[in-house]
Amino acid sequence: MLDAAVDAFAERGFGGTSTRDVAVRAGRSPAAVYVHYDSKEALLYAISLEGHMAALDCLKLAYASSEDPAARLHAMVFAFSDWHMENARLARVVQYELHALSKVHRADIVSLRRRFHRVMVGAVRDGIRAGQFQVDDVNGTARALLSLCIDLVRWFDPARGRNSRAIAQLNADLALRMVGDV
Amino acid sequence: MLDAAVDAFAERGFGGTSTRDVAVRAGRSPAAVYVHYDSKEALLYAISLEGHMAALDCLKLAYASSEDPAARLHAMVFAFSDWHMENARLARVVQYELHALSKVHRADIVSLRRRFHRVMVGAVRDGIRAGQFQVDDVNGTARALLSLCIDLVRWFDPARGRNSRAIAQLNADLALRMVGDV
Repeated sequence: MLDAAVDAFAERGFGGTSTRDVAVRAGRSPAAVYVHYDSKEALLYAISLEGHMAALDCLKLAYASSEDPAARLHAMVFAFSDWHMENARLARVVQYELHALSKVHRADIVSLRRRFHRVMVGAVRDGIRAGQFQVDDVNGTARALLSLCIDLVRWFDPARGRNSRAIAQLNADLALRMVGDV
Repeated sequence: MLDAAVDAFAERGFGGTSTRDVAVRAGRSPAAVYVHYDSKEALLYAISLEGHMAALDCLKLAYASSEDPAARLHAMVFAFSDWHMENARLARVVQYELHALSKVHRADIVSLRRRFHRVMVGAVRDGIRAGQFQVDDVNGTARALLSLCIDLVRWFDPARGRNSRAIAQLNADLALRMVGDV
């Protein structure tokens, strides 16, 4: 059901999709969404939570993959870029339909997003502390590093056959330049 | 009418907005959209064209502002970042509702987007030719530079009082690092 909803929302937008569309796409009866979710918004919230948690796990796993600040940041930007290309549809829905969530649900997701920021800030600080990175604006640089990865969902199209590993590698190399890795 | 449409699409998404909503928001009669546009899709196309043309003008103007490759790239990333923060609502609609355009209209917008890429590629090549930039993947780096600016529309919220000039300045400084400005 969640997969069907992601496909439907990605193609027609949240506002252009009915719960009936989602149910039919999932091969279920028209009212089947309501067996599991109170509303279309609750379905979007479930997708947003799942997407953000999976992306956060990916970022934290990469953080833990190395003790060296440069290798660690490289791994994080590689993995996070790769995640956004591998999960482009899910990520697009999660990123672009935030406005459709209720106020309370939106606040949950915004809180989750701060955790991405904190992990990235931690990685940048590690490198500064070790004397390897030269960064004045840690918060702003962390946001820019996340931007570089997340914006892939806007333009990356797997159907066009671009090499996602090469793109993730380039982003990771650019990230080291951005933090003034010496 | 275009302003009202941008506001409506930004708040509820293209699929969640009717032409009646747009007309009423513009203080017009419910059918007033059809005086000027054949369909809701034609209205979105007009907004997309206007938004892309304005952003492209901004980028080209900044390109022409200096002869020095580093100063030029810095000016471009500053101006393009600033444009996306100043026009966050318009840019969000233009970026996120591309899927709602007809095939022909979408192809027009995709062609326009290639022009942004060409301008940025030109700026990177200028710096390489002058021996100032060190870039292996010119196309990929140009895309990453544009990403850094465009992704601002996803998270920048003028209501939160962040300093947009400081963000544009940071992005421009990061851009010079990304191209290995020496």
